[in-house]
Amino acid sequence: MNVQTKVTTTEDLMANAIRALTMDAVQQANSGHPGAPMGMADVAAVLFNRFVTLDPKQDRWPDRDRFVMSAGHGSMLVYAIHHLLGYDDMPTDQIRRFRQLGARTAGHPEYGHAKGIEMTTGPLGQGLATAVGMALAERMLNARFGDALVDHFTYVIAGDGCLMEGISHEAIDLAGHLRLGRLVLLWDDNGITIDGGTDLSTSTDQRARFTAAGWHVQAVDGHDKDAVAQAIELARTDPRPSMIACRTVIGYGAPTKQGSHDVHGAPLGAEEIATARRALDWPHPPFEIPEPVRAAWRAVAARGAAARQDWARRVAAHPQAEAFRAAQGPVDARALEAAMTAHKHRLSQDAPRVATRKASEMALEVVNATLPDTAGGSADLTGSNNTRTKGMRAVAPGDYAGRYIHYGIREHAMAAAMNGLALHGGLRPYGGTFLAFADYCRPAMRLSALMGVPVTYVMTHDSIGLGEDGPTHQPVETLASLRAMPNLLVLRPADAVETAESWALALAQTTTPVVLCLSRQALPTVRTRHVEANLVARGAYVLRAAPHRDVTLIATGSEVELALAAADLLAAEGIAAAVVSAPCFELFAVQGAEHRAEVLGDAPRVGIEAAVRQGWDGLMLRPGDGFVGMTGFGASAPAPDLYRHFGITAEAVADLARHLTRSPATAH
Amino acid sequence: MNVQTKVTTTEDLMANAIRALTMDAVQQANSGHPGAPMGMADVAAVLFNRFVTLDPKQDRWPDRDRFVMSAGHGSMLVYAIHHLLGYDDMPTDQIRRFRQLGARTAGHPEYGHAKGIEMTTGPLGQGLATAVGMALAERMLNARFGDALVDHFTYVIAGDGCLMEGISHEAIDLAGHLRLGRLVLLWDDNGITIDGGTDLSTSTDQRARFTAAGWHVQAVDGHDKDAVAQAIELARTDPRPSMIACRTVIGYGAPTKQGSHDVHGAPLGAEEIATARRALDWPHPPFEIPEPVRAAWRAVAARGAAARQDWARRVAAHPQAEAFRAAQGPVDARALEAAMTAHKHRLSQDAPRVATRKASEMALEVVNATLPDTAGGSADLTGSNNTRTKGMRAVAPGDYAGRYIHYGIREHAMAAAMNGLALHGGLRPYGGTFLAFADYCRPAMRLSALMGVPVTYVMTHDSIGLGEDGPTHQPVETLASLRAMPNLLVLRPADAVETAESWALALAQTTTPVVLCLSRQALPTVRTRHVEANLVARGAYVLRAAPHRDVTLIATGSEVELALAAADLLAAEGIAAAVVSAPCFELFAVQGAEHRAEVLGDAPRVGIEAAVRQGWDGLMLRPGDGFVGMTGFGASAPAPDLYRHFGITAEAVADLARHLTRSPATAH
Repeated sequence: MNVQTKVTTTEDLMANAIRALTMDAVQQANSGHPGAPMGMADVAAVLFNRFVTLDPKQDRWPDRDRFVMSAGHGSMLVYAIHHLLGYDDMPTDQIRRFRQLGARTAGHPEYGHAKGIEMTTGPLGQGLATAVGMALAERMLNARFGDALVDHFTYVIAGDGCLMEGISHEAIDLAGHLRLGRLVLLWDDNGITIDGGTDLSTSTDQRARFTAAGWHVQAVDGHDKDAVAQAIELARTDPRPSMIACRTVIGYGAPTKQGSHDVHGAPLGAEEIATARRALDWPHPPFEIPEPVRAAWRAVAARGAAARQDWARRVAAHPQAEAFRAAQGPVDARALEAAMTAHKHRLSQDAPRVATRKASEMALEVVNATLPDTAGGSADLTGSNNTRTKGMRAVAPGDYAGRYIHYGIREHAMAAAMNGLALHGGLRPYGGTFLAFADYCRPAMRLSALMGVPVTYVMTHDSIGLGEDGPTHQPVETLASLRAMPNLLVLRPADAVETAESWALALAQTTTPVVLCLSRQALPTVRTRHVEANLVARGAYVLRAAPHRDVTLIATGSEVELALAAADLLAAEGIAAAVVSAPCFELFAVQGAEHRAEVLGDAPRVGIEAAVRQGWDGLMLRPGDGFVGMTGFGASAPAPDLYRHFGITAEAVADLARHLTRSPATAH
Repeated sequence: MNVQTKVTTTEDLMANAIRALTMDAVQQANSGHPGAPMGMADVAAVLFNRFVTLDPKQDRWPDRDRFVMSAGHGSMLVYAIHHLLGYDDMPTDQIRRFRQLGARTAGHPEYGHAKGIEMTTGPLGQGLATAVGMALAERMLNARFGDALVDHFTYVIAGDGCLMEGISHEAIDLAGHLRLGRLVLLWDDNGITIDGGTDLSTSTDQRARFTAAGWHVQAVDGHDKDAVAQAIELARTDPRPSMIACRTVIGYGAPTKQGSHDVHGAPLGAEEIATARRALDWPHPPFEIPEPVRAAWRAVAARGAAARQDWARRVAAHPQAEAFRAAQGPVDARALEAAMTAHKHRLSQDAPRVATRKASEMALEVVNATLPDTAGGSADLTGSNNTRTKGMRAVAPGDYAGRYIHYGIREHAMAAAMNGLALHGGLRPYGGTFLAFADYCRPAMRLSALMGVPVTYVMTHDSIGLGEDGPTHQPVETLASLRAMPNLLVLRPADAVETAESWALALAQTTTPVVLCLSRQALPTVRTRHVEANLVARGAYVLRAAPHRDVTLIATGSEVELALAAADLLAAEGIAAAVVSAPCFELFAVQGAEHRAEVLGDAPRVGIEAAVRQGWDGLMLRPGDGFVGMTGFGASAPAPDLYRHFGITAEAVADLARHLTRSPATAH
């Protein structure tokens, strides 16, 4: 293939600077993905040069445009741009240390590693779906605070992989439905995937597909800068979300390798880079950027800085300035804790017998009355998840004043969109589905945890206690699979009081997502005393003490009721059983050794949870301790029948406890 | 809403029989979903009466049509039809015991619970995506054995939920690309979801969307039986996969509730049912079906039985009859084990230093040469997963003679399609992606495990050992999350020999799916002796014995190399360390206590795995034992740097072992 690049404008040089830095960094690292950054360099140069508004000196400025590189393997595009724009944490040295230990220039863009990285991308499709949440947040905040304070765009670059992933369907369907006109998707339409041409695996007419989902669709030559600019201009004015198919040559500028999948994910090699430098008329040494090119990029930053100053002046004069600023920060955890403590006092007196999903709704009434910035929703299970409180208005196409989102039957996009709402700032998202369908959300939940985004997952129907819907809907391994994930709090409250504490705790998080695991079936209030302190925050605590302990029964959620009943059975025989409620393993694990020892005691232990045992050993149980739970998938039947069928009963707990107290295992 | 039902034909009665059984069963169970079965009763009556070919007396007949109720909550549609067709395991008693413990009539259709249920459905979208695999299997087997032996259709009923789920995009994209013309999707287009009208959450033009994906699309009134029949007729002849939008009234026949989301998932109530009986002109008592209606349904079965007999005669006379029959059964595990043992002998002599993903390719060369029925593939990571062996031809649109499938960047649909290939029979699917992206496959993997379908997941890049791509691509919790799942074997071989054994073991499974967790980085051959037996099958074994044991080092996969190096370090100090390789926790857990005790020994233990500790305690480790692994997410850097950074080194293992041997913990 012959050299095609013509350098005639400063914008051409701006694009070639991205290409040069990409080639050099990938070569230096001896690993990485030059294809996408080189292919999309022209589009990116136009986008930033003519449209994107941001201020590298105030990278968290709330009204900045959001830019998401959904094709995260093309991370060098982001780093090159940040370097050129003058982000102070992205000097040449960082580009030189691409993909090295401790560098901000990780293989994929990592949220929090460097300024201006709006989210972690890499798992394909997540960027696009999260950007939908960002664009939705922009409209929701705009509806609250008006154009003067909130008025920006969300731009996404996505590749073929992003558009093949299922989550892309959920995301574009939701964005099209909600008419998120401030969302502009630039598709790197290069016809290449890792295995070869896209025609190996897809025949979909992407333009028709996006049109079917209610998007505004255009197609351009991704190397024709004026055409790209014109398309972006139209995209910004159209009231629908916009997709621009940018026909590009992958690895554009690498004369012999461009246009082939060989350029996707491997260094070009010294020889090809030398040839590319000639082809691009880029005679500068590796990592060096001539001053005129730097100046052109700095002008972009200067334009953004000026815009930010204008905005700051508008804010200063705005009657809602204070509310706007408050919404940008963490929630008023103290106010919430106070309101929730009052709520707990009422509960401890009323001692309602309700499902924890219902208790969650009761707590949410307090939450939503106390905190103005929560944004609720459900993946089409509103009446089951009990996520919509009284008078909570729904967001609708073109009407963003509500604070409840009908995410549709799209668990994955819901999770990703919640990440986007939270990352955008100004809103505190929570959303519901059944716990078994955490699996559908999991790639986005992993990003919540990895990025440290305080999203609250409301997951109801948390065991065989859901009954007749059967094993497809009954989590048994789900608790363990979520507890395995770093930086995720899995809360399984036992009653209405613990549910209230769980909500207070969830919303107090600033860098950790939370999963609330809630029962379908009604449960008694077991925490009728000691409601002043948030005991869920200790991870586990002694719910019923025994004068001396013959045995300790440790349970979570709906099984705490069983543990108490078993303790009663044992007491009748003169066996003293302490009952421990353990709503959060992760928090318990980080308590001091003293608290842990005090709670767990020295007596034999029985763990009780209608789920698999994995995760209990080591933290809660020792060799020889007992466990009453599940060993395989559930079944379809009324819940009480299932508990009996699987032997998760007070009698079974008492039997095991009796056995352990009579013949303590020798292993410990 | 007024009564609309007119009964003029026997087919109307056939449909009303489905409605009546549905109403009665849901009412009796006091739980369930009447909406979909009643809404789609007309479509189903036409489909089965005029098109579907099956034989209730030979429910596993290979050339039967496949019918998948992707909207699995509408299970009563399936049970009613099976009852009416005369499946001998679906008498009235089963209908009466809908959703009760031990009944075959589970809340959602469960594969293996009753004859003729082609798969477990309920998690939305899975049925459609799995059916794509079934339809692909049909074409692949047709290419091998011709029209005389393989010539059938795959019909799917899907609801709005199925089409909103992301997996539907992956599935229809793949089916459209591969031109699976024998796939007919009947969309229950009733405009209702649980939260309310579909317009609450979607605006997508589904017909345009399917057209964009290369499907043949029609729309009909789902209560106009002749129109439905005509559409199915056209769908069967069109060379593309077909989607028929069947506009229906949810709960059709329930006069006051039909057309609303109230009829989706709750019993109608005695009064509404009585009114419905009048409206439907169905004067028969609950669960009673008049003989003429039974006769009409039996005629469907008789037509199918005759077709099966014709087919059986064709098979008897067919030159490929034996090969066809062999393909229907389990693989020749003995032949494979023999071939693999020879392969292992070569390996033990050559002792190659290769990544286990490369070792997997070497083993696959043996597998694919020995077993004619394997069907490989990858989610666009062929060159990374090493799933395509020499000369392996790819399936392409309209050309199904190959045995390699380019699934595209669609991990979820790949997993579901593999379920479909395996469920169809005649093929033994395996498919690859990165282990971190098991999360994208997880809902379908759960169905593999729940149904007991022997699919092999080839998951490479199984730890921080993948290096620079960073934490999004580095599994740390993935092993634990998969080990938590019932009926799933998670194999993490340490070298080429164990990888060969893992493949032999995986393909010997008949009711259990397997995940092969394979390294990106090169590993030495550590099993240079004792290659006659398949030691992976024991779950864990002593790789290096010590005359007496001061300490036992237990490792999996790439960390076995570290354990051996640590043992060397310790030996130099006079500390005797036994090294245990533990490629499969699930198999180890079910070995006899003697084997487990022999392997683990009494000495202090150190577990080593570049992943979180969850799953190690209880089975492998006791309180006081040590663990060298990960406690959080990974990072982006060359792999050796990461191992050092996270302290997963032979030195760290030796340090911990030294500490434990000097001051054994008091806890055990």
